[in-house]
Amino acid sequence: VLPAEVRDHQPQLTASHGAADTVQSLTTEVGPRLAGSAGDKLAVTWAIAAMKARGLSNVHTEKVTVKHWERGVETATLVAPTRHNLAVTALGWSGATPPKGVEAPVVRFDSLEALKKADPASVAKKIVFLDVHTRRSVDGHGYGEAVPTRRYGPEVAAKKGAVAIVIRSIGTDHLRFAHTGETHFTDAKGAFPAGALSNPDADLLAHVLEARGEARMSLVLTPRVLPDAESANVVGEIPGREKPNEVVLLGAHLDSWDLGTGALDDGAGCAILLEAGRALAALSQKPRRTVRIVLFAQEENGLTGGEEYARAHAADAAQVVVAAEADSGSDRVVKLRVRGGPEASAALTSLTPVVAPLNVTSDGERAFGGADIWPLAALGVPLLDLEQDFSRYFDVHHTANDTFAQIDADALAQASAAYATVAWSVADSAASFGRIPEGEREKAKALASDKPATPAKK
Amino acid sequence: VLPAEVRDHQPQLTASHGAADTVQSLTTEVGPRLAGSAGDKLAVTWAIAAMKARGLSNVHTEKVTVKHWERGVETATLVAPTRHNLAVTALGWSGATPPKGVEAPVVRFDSLEALKKADPASVAKKIVFLDVHTRRSVDGHGYGEAVPTRRYGPEVAAKKGAVAIVIRSIGTDHLRFAHTGETHFTDAKGAFPAGALSNPDADLLAHVLEARGEARMSLVLTPRVLPDAESANVVGEIPGREKPNEVVLLGAHLDSWDLGTGALDDGAGCAILLEAGRALAALSQKPRRTVRIVLFAQEENGLTGGEEYARAHAADAAQVVVAAEADSGSDRVVKLRVRGGPEASAALTSLTPVVAPLNVTSDGERAFGGADIWPLAALGVPLLDLEQDFSRYFDVHHTANDTFAQIDADALAQASAAYATVAWSVADSAASFGRIPEGEREKAKALASDKPATPAKK
Repeated sequence: VLPAEVRDHQPQLTASHGAADTVQSLTTEVGPRLAGSAGDKLAVTWAIAAMKARGLSNVHTEKVTVKHWERGVETATLVAPTRHNLAVTALGWSGATPPKGVEAPVVRFDSLEALKKADPASVAKKIVFLDVHTRRSVDGHGYGEAVPTRRYGPEVAAKKGAVAIVIRSIGTDHLRFAHTGETHFTDAKGAFPAGALSNPDADLLAHVLEARGEARMSLVLTPRVLPDAESANVVGEIPGREKPNEVVLLGAHLDSWDLGTGALDDGAGCAILLEAGRALAALSQKPRRTVRIVLFAQEENGLTGGEEYARAHAADAAQVVVAAEADSGSDRVVKLRVRGGPEASAALTSLTPVVAPLNVTSDGERAFGGADIWPLAALGVPLLDLEQDFSRYFDVHHTANDTFAQIDADALAQASAAYATVAWSVADSAASFGRIPEGEREKAKALASDKPATPAKK
Repeated sequence: VLPAEVRDHQPQLTASHGAADTVQSLTTEVGPRLAGSAGDKLAVTWAIAAMKARGLSNVHTEKVTVKHWERGVETATLVAPTRHNLAVTALGWSGATPPKGVEAPVVRFDSLEALKKADPASVAKKIVFLDVHTRRSVDGHGYGEAVPTRRYGPEVAAKKGAVAIVIRSIGTDHLRFAHTGETHFTDAKGAFPAGALSNPDADLLAHVLEARGEARMSLVLTPRVLPDAESANVVGEIPGREKPNEVVLLGAHLDSWDLGTGALDDGAGCAILLEAGRALAALSQKPRRTVRIVLFAQEENGLTGGEEYARAHAADAAQVVVAAEADSGSDRVVKLRVRGGPEASAALTSLTPVVAPLNVTSDGERAFGGADIWPLAALGVPLLDLEQDFSRYFDVHHTANDTFAQIDADALAQASAAYATVAWSVADSAASFGRIPEGEREKAKALASDKPATPAKK
């Protein structure tokens, strides 16, 4: 049973646009904040002030050395058999073409598997077009299915002798925005030009190839890798009144891609936690255990913030009761899920009544966690998902269109209320989620070292 | 009563994606086609071939000398009190800033009237931000209300000594696309820098001004005016079997803005007429009077095609029974409306049963016509509207996002069926729409010389 002042959070928070105001502040006063950039530094300053203004305690930064990649010029032109300017953006850690670009015939593949199987002679000296559609799904599985094309396609194309790759954007929209996102290179990051075309431009290229049998493209991408830079994880707490060393950890990431202003990804997550934190900090009676909010550095193109946090806190990982991450945009929380020891399902069952008024349910699925807390999961820390509706997230994700205009303020308020209630309930209880068993930690390690964002199979 | 083969058009056309395929062809094989550009010339060649392939007769071009404006670099940066790259595009006939741009404080006005009333001392040496929202409406009146800010704002700002103007995009979306469109300069076209910000960027600028009380912007726009160029109106017919000199004229415009591929504006209108023309040309018995399809040059930034057509055909304007223009995107036809002599309403009444199966109705409103046929209306030629649903049109209109992906193929098919049926019915009948009375022609002349696209009041 919730105390009245906690129960009252739900209607107060769901009726408030406090979280949306926070996103507006972050996206206006800071804007884009790719790790290592001027915006990244500004965001750390903003986050410290935001936590203090909301009454959090022990507000501090923990230094993270981040990798630094910077976007340059990006143009793609279909030069034959018809001429078109195509909307393109470099993928994270893409290498650069020469300043005047590369021009080559285009060879299309409709799956990563087909590219892997291709005779290198059919790929060499060409621009690979990896044309995989992203399926819309309520839980993000469609993204998980498509994202390996972005992660692995560039390196496969490079090894077969292509001069560059362009992929169909990993995104569910039909708007003329290209979706960026991280690529994986086993070595030599930044050595191979890799871009994404907007979905309408990918449609056009596919149509030309089908109707005319050939296409020739000129591609200019001039990103560069800069020396490592200093950034920080920003931490604040609602200290527990009885067991302050036991911690309920709520994470989001403070960095964003550079194209938009990082409103959904992950201004929304930061705002959910700051709003929940504000509500908890204002309570006359704090919960028994500590609620810790961590806004991580460099989730988007390196995971250095989450990794550094787990490294620095490995010794006290056992004191983290459970970890949750808000990194799914501004839509409603729809499900609660856990992953931990045998005790976890009972702990989950105790939570379901408190979020029922918010129309949050639970099902048999196990929690997925988030990129910044997988390194903790690899240490055994159990995971709690407050899973949001993903249906529209990948329309906007990683594009120039990720701005405050895309925020659903009412849904974001519901998510803030869900986080506040769940965080209070877990922190005030004596419930244990156990530990993720040794055998399952390897899986979390693999996720952490090779971020798929949402796996195809949980 | 329609002959069976005409009646059969409706289900055949509504079940076909022929019109959508035509838009895909125009947007892929030609793409953007601003008057005077290489795409404009290619579009004329495409249109001739398209008309011939669909069985039209008397396919020919009529030369039009077009004005030629070309977009350059365009960037807008909020430099203080926070730094942001803003999505901007030059308005048609905007002048250029110096290559490195202008930097000045921003002064905001929430209406054209407020700007008109402003003390020049408050505007001089500043960048004017004209912040007017476009209301969504089913019939385009919201656009008509907002568009004077784009048409007249730049000249008003210039006369008060501003260094440049940026307007909030005239558009109903919340996407990060800036909407271009023509501006009006009494003289000295191309002399004053005038841009539009995307709606989310205008939101951000307005928020900064409200929260911080000041903003400073750097603006680079480098369009240029080139020598006049040659283009053409492209004409094809279904010759009447009894009275070939009496003409039902259907117009659309072949040119487009340069940012997208001109799918909705006006690839859709061209495709509606070409698909209707294909259906009529395939009839075993042609209608009594001629159906003439005219794809006009340079509607977007000059109206030279429509003006030249009326000038060249002034002597036989009396033979045009009625004129209609398809320039409203790919949504369904919902209303029939006329404007002509006293006979017009009876003529309209005779048409309503033939389009009832397509859910097209009529109301007491008078026809609006279209920019290319207003010069004919000024000669007395009556107007017939097959008015489409405008609700979503101004989400996309004049943006880089105006691509084939935005086409609603099923709705476009319905519009093609409506045009085919109405054109056949009017052409086969002896109905007269009379002439627009002398007193009302002045209004059409005013529309033609000062295109508001959709007036606030009809």
